[in-house]
Parts: sequence; structure tokens; C-alpha cells
Amino acid sequence: MQTIHQRFQIEYQYSVFFTENLFHQNNPLLKDFFSNYKDQGFQRKALVVVDEGFANHHPTLEQDIKSYFESQVQDIALAKDIIFVPGGEASKNDPALFEKLCKAVDIYGIDRHSFVVGIGGGAVLDLVGYAAAVSHRGIKLIRIPTTVLSQNDSGVGVKNGINFHGKKNFLGTFAPAVAVFNDLTFLRSLEDRDWRGGISEAIKVALIKDAGFFTWMEENATKLVNRDEEAMAYLIHRCAEMHTDHIAGGDPFEFGSSRPLDFGHWAAHKLEYLTNFEVRHGEAVAIGIALDCVYAVQIGMLAESDLYRILDLLTKLGFDLYHPKLAENDKINLRNGLQEFREHLGGRLTIMLLEKIGKGVEVHELDADIIAKSVDYLETATLATPEKIS
Amino acid sequence: MQTIHQRFQIEYQYSVFFTENLFHQNNPLLKDFFSNYKDQGFQRKALVVVDEGFANHHPTLEQDIKSYFESQVQDIALAKDIIFVPGGEASKNDPALFEKLCKAVDIYGIDRHSFVVGIGGGAVLDLVGYAAAVSHRGIKLIRIPTTVLSQNDSGVGVKNGINFHGKKNFLGTFAPAVAVFNDLTFLRSLEDRDWRGGISEAIKVALIKDAGFFTWMEENATKLVNRDEEAMAYLIHRCAEMHTDHIAGGDPFEFGSSRPLDFGHWAAHKLEYLTNFEVRHGEAVAIGIALDCVYAVQIGMLAESDLYRILDLLTKLGFDLYHPKLAENDKINLRNGLQEFREHLGGRLTIMLLEKIGKGVEVHELDADIIAKSVDYLETATLATPEKIS
Repeated sequence: MQTIHQRFQIEYQYSVFFTENLFHQNNPLLKDFFSNYKDQGFQRKALVVVDEGFANHHPTLEQDIKSYFESQVQDIALAKDIIFVPGGEASKNDPALFEKLCKAVDIYGIDRHSFVVGIGGGAVLDLVGYAAAVSHRGIKLIRIPTTVLSQNDSGVGVKNGINFHGKKNFLGTFAPAVAVFNDLTFLRSLEDRDWRGGISEAIKVALIKDAGFFTWMEENATKLVNRDEEAMAYLIHRCAEMHTDHIAGGDPFEFGSSRPLDFGHWAAHKLEYLTNFEVRHGEAVAIGIALDCVYAVQIGMLAESDLYRILDLLTKLGFDLYHPKLAENDKINLRNGLQEFREHLGGRLTIMLLEKIGKGVEVHELDADIIAKSVDYLETATLATPEKIS
Repeated sequence: MQTIHQRFQIEYQYSVFFTENLFHQNNPLLKDFFSNYKDQGFQRKALVVVDEGFANHHPTLEQDIKSYFESQVQDIALAKDIIFVPGGEASKNDPALFEKLCKAVDIYGIDRHSFVVGIGGGAVLDLVGYAAAVSHRGIKLIRIPTTVLSQNDSGVGVKNGINFHGKKNFLGTFAPAVAVFNDLTFLRSLEDRDWRGGISEAIKVALIKDAGFFTWMEENATKLVNRDEEAMAYLIHRCAEMHTDHIAGGDPFEFGSSRPLDFGHWAAHKLEYLTNFEVRHGEAVAIGIALDCVYAVQIGMLAESDLYRILDLLTKLGFDLYHPKLAENDKINLRNGLQEFREHLGGRLTIMLLEKIGKGVEVHELDADIIAKSVDYLETATLATPEKIS
């Protein structure tokens, strides 16, 4: 019998909107978006899931959402309850929360033509996105990221996931949202460390793709530290734009081994675990970038002058460049992290390093001794302004 | 800030191979397939998961697989243990089995460039496919279906899933395999009812798409009943071909509401649940087809002569056309089934009915009284050869 060859393409598209006061009665953005989905002979619904950490800072949020749907969104029936889940990495560690969201999909009758709307930081959006992606084999997802990190990076991407027995993002899918709404005013309630934290992903993407954007951040570091919203709005937009461009132009569902946007991330993931997530993702990425840039200098790939600019910018923004857990257990933990990173990505180890500011290059091995030396360098480098590398 | 419009396409392709004695040392098919994946600077692995129900009838299987990999497949490292899971719908009801498979992926270091190989009936392949699809956001899946139903229908499609708190396929994804291997010799150990059961999906696809194939089944009904392998090989190939063509030509990931391949399935799904899966999927589909064809006659859509041919073929093949659970509880259970079917598909109720043999047509409502009358018709129709409809 003749072999059957099957072949087809799936097209995905979504928009990332930038706005302020998304749920104000006079903001038509969400209403207009939903109006594209009306009048098809059945009632679509929306189930809204909110990050408690965010909700605690926005006491009128629940009422604002209900009022907005009631008066503005005629075509979509809001599920009568809004679901709250704890924020931060904890939300991805608790299988009961995943179960709770799937049950909510069932209880409120949310079908594949209805919407799950996630409002919160990256971790909550990862959890909500995963539950939406596997319930009924995929419900339409709307992401409303509320942190710098999720507005400029994870929230505009195509991944979701939860942790499984201590393995970060072990369970997950590639499942683009149908829309992302970035509300600048939602960032006002962020702690300084989270306002800052998300900037590390912008530094990451600038370093591997756009020297001009890196220079812009150097010039605007003081504004960024002082929580200038105009500067942050530009940073988020430019970072999101490069992130989405990269996804569309590359390998969106990561069938290959290359994952340039994970620059600085292999050590970051391990550090998050080693500190039980006390070091948050953006902070860990800053350290991961610093580590891999020192490494690149040590192997003669990156100029020292570029390294100093990078460490200088990170320091000016208030990032730590080192954490004692990096050196613990004779750095074996960190080496294990490299192995775990390879296993999660799969295939040949592929690590993005920096050739110069604005240009990344992939390598397929890292030397454990040089990693160790790089850790030692960062340990002393944090004590003062960056020193000469030996 | 300007809206970012993201857009990209993902291409999927896979082959469905037809063979005999897949794990015999002199069958190069699997070896040749894996040789496409060699020599990329890293070691790929394979984790094999087998349906216990199938394994019990094939006592040398485990050794055959290990010997085949050892002597034939140099490029892929077989995980040292083969995993066994119970067969049948029970495997999709037990969350511990899903958990077991994800843990195995972790324990044996199966990454995104390695393979999970599922061997078994449709239910086991659904479970294995789901675990593979969400572990590390998607591991390459090879399906080796061992029943008529999975070889001609579910196994060659793009879906997976498990049940969740009694809801069939509530959790799942669309995730094409990288290859499907249909081994005709694997069907020899099937009970008669499972050999027969899978034929209902071939009848389904013939009825909505290919009158000539339906006629072929009428002409070959006796051979099929007598377990003629050549006839079955043709039936499976033709059915698989139409199934994959339909997927590629239509809406593979079911973004719309239309699902023609679910002809006969709305009542079938409910009947499976109502009988606690004593009525198996293929048997339920035969009854579902009968019911919807009687319905189509009742509303004047289908000619009685076509109905008699359909009921006659089903009867000749040994299918029941009725089950008492259809009428239970004043047929309210069945009406609930229609609602649940709509919710699982999402959007507007869309049901495929038959206009004539070889041509389906979609409708958006079914009348509860006419469903009830159709059930009554089938209750008496089973007592003798098909009678005239009143």
C-alpha cells in the first residue's frame, strides 16, 4: 500500500495593542476588538482570570471589568465570576491552580469560540495560557500583561507553561494569543524591582540584535530608573517589536535547536531555582547576561570595552551582577543548569553568546572552567565599579 | 504607540506508512525512517509506550522492539525500559497515567528532538500523544496504531486528548505526529468486535464523501466479516487517505465550527458515556450514524432507499443499530449529549447530516422530537431486517 504523505500549514495572527486605562468606559479598544467576533449565530463568552498580586494594587479592577463588559461589550457574555490566582512563580508550581482553571472553563461553559482573558504577570499568563491551550484543545486567549517583563517579552510571545515536579516549564505548549493588550498605567503599581526587572529582556534583545537600542538605553538609563513612563513606553514597544519580529522571522514553535532569545537564560533559569525564586526572572536574566558576557570576553569573542558598557548599564539600572548561589557547591549546580537547559531545549547544546553589542553568535559548548572563572570575576565585580578582566 | 501585527505560518508534514511485521529484523521501514534523523551532533532517544491490551496478545513484542533497535537503529538510543499502560478508554480517565508518562519523559531524558513512540489502540495513542505534546512543549511523536479504528481514523489524524472529570477529550491539543506506521499483522489479535468496530469510521467517511467506497464496502461486506486481510488493508488505506485529505484540505486545527468527520459522533460520544464505555467507540459511531440517517429521512433530506442500504450494511457487518440507553430517562440524556457536543466543538451547533450516500450537508439545529422518533424507529428496526419508516 502506498505511503500517504500529509502536509498542511496553519496560519496564526494576533495584534499587540498599546493603551492606557484599558477598562475605562471611554476606552474603545477592547470593545472594538470584541466587535470583530459578533453576530455569528451564537453567544461567545469570556472568562477573566486575574493575578491576585496585581488585583491587590487595583481594588476597583473587578468592578471596572464588570462595568466595562456590561456597558461596552454587548457581544460577549462575561462569566459571572472573575477568577483570581496567586501571582509569581508559585502559580506555576501548584497543579491545583491549573486544575481550578480547567474546571472554571467547564463550569462557565467556555468553548473554543469563547475567550479566556489572563490579566497579570508573566507567570500567571503562562499558567492561564496553558490551561486555555489544552482545555477543549485550545480556547482563544487574550493576554493582558501587567509587568514590564510580560509586556515586552513573554506576554507578546507564543509560549505558555507550568512547572512539573520542580522542572521549570516542563509542561506547556506553543499557542499564540488572539490579542495582547499592553496597558502602560498598569505598570504604576509595580515595585521598583519589577519595574527594573523587565528591562533586562530589553537589554538582552538589544545586545543580540540592535546596538542602537542599546545606546538608547544607555542614554535613557536615568529616566528609566526614575520611572519615566514615556521612556518605558518606548522601551516596551521596541522590545516587543523585536521579540515578535524574531518569532515570525525564525522558528516560532522552535522545531530546531536554536533559541537566540534565550541569550543569558541558561544560568538565569538555574539561579531562579537555586534561590527558590527569590531572585526574580528579570533579575536572574541580568546576572545571566553579565555571566555570558564575561565568558565571551574570556574566550576572546567580545571586546572588554563592550563588556564594561554592558555591566555599566546593568549597574546603573540597579541590577546585581552576582549572586552567591552561582558559586555554591563548587559551581556544580551551575553546570547542572547548563545540562538541564540543553535537555529542555532538546538536541545539540546551543547557547547564544555576544560577539559585539548588537550581534549575537551561537556556540555549541561552554567550558566549565571558564564558566567558573567568569563567576569569580562577577563576584568581585559587584564590590565596585567594573574592574579590568584578568 | 503603534499596534504590532504579528503573523506567521507553521508547516506540518508527516507520512502514514503501511507495512507488515514492523519489528522484524528484515523490515527496514522504521530503520530507514530514523536514519533521516542521524548525525546532527547529538544523541536522539526514543521512549516506547505500549498498550497492555495489545502487549498481552504479543508476548514477544518487548523483546522484538529491543532487538530491532539494538541491531537496526544505530542512530537512536532506546530508553532502557518500555512503558506499559492499560488499554481502552480507562487509560484516558486516569490522570496518574498522564503523570507517569510525563515523569518517564523526564527520567529517561527525552528532549524535544527525541521521540515518544506510542503503540496501541486509539485511546492509548490519545493519552501518549497528549503527554508527548505538552512535555517540553512538544516531543516528536510516532504513532503505531494497533486497531482498525486507530489505523484508519484517529491514529492518522492530528488530535490527542484525555478525559477530565468525566468529560471526554476535555484536555488535549492539536499535534500532528512525525510519522504513523500501520502494521496489518497487528490486527490479527483483535477481537471480532474491534475488527468490526473500526469499519464504522470507514462507513462514515464514505457516506459523506465517496459513494463508490460505500458500494465497495457493500460488495466486500462478507469478506470484511470473514476477516479478509486484503479487503481490510484496502479499507484502511482508503479511509486513512480520505481522512488525511480532509484534514489538509479543510481546517486542520478546527478554528471554525465545522467538523464533518464527526458525522454520527454526537450521539456516539454520549452513548459511550451512558454505557460506561461498554459500547466501544466504533460500535457507538455505527449507532450514531444509523440514528442521524433515520433523522435525515424523517426530515425529508435523505431517501429511504439510501437509509435501507446503510442500515443493511451496518447489520451485515454485525453492528447493533440501537442501545436501550438511547431511550433512557425519556431521551433527556441524549439531548444533553447534543448540548455537550456543541460545547466541546464550540460556537454554533453544527451537525453533519446525509443528503445522499456520498454527500453530507451541515445543519445547525436538530429537533428533539424528531430525535426521539428516530430512536424509537431504531428500537424496532433492530428486531428484524429494516422496516419501512413511518
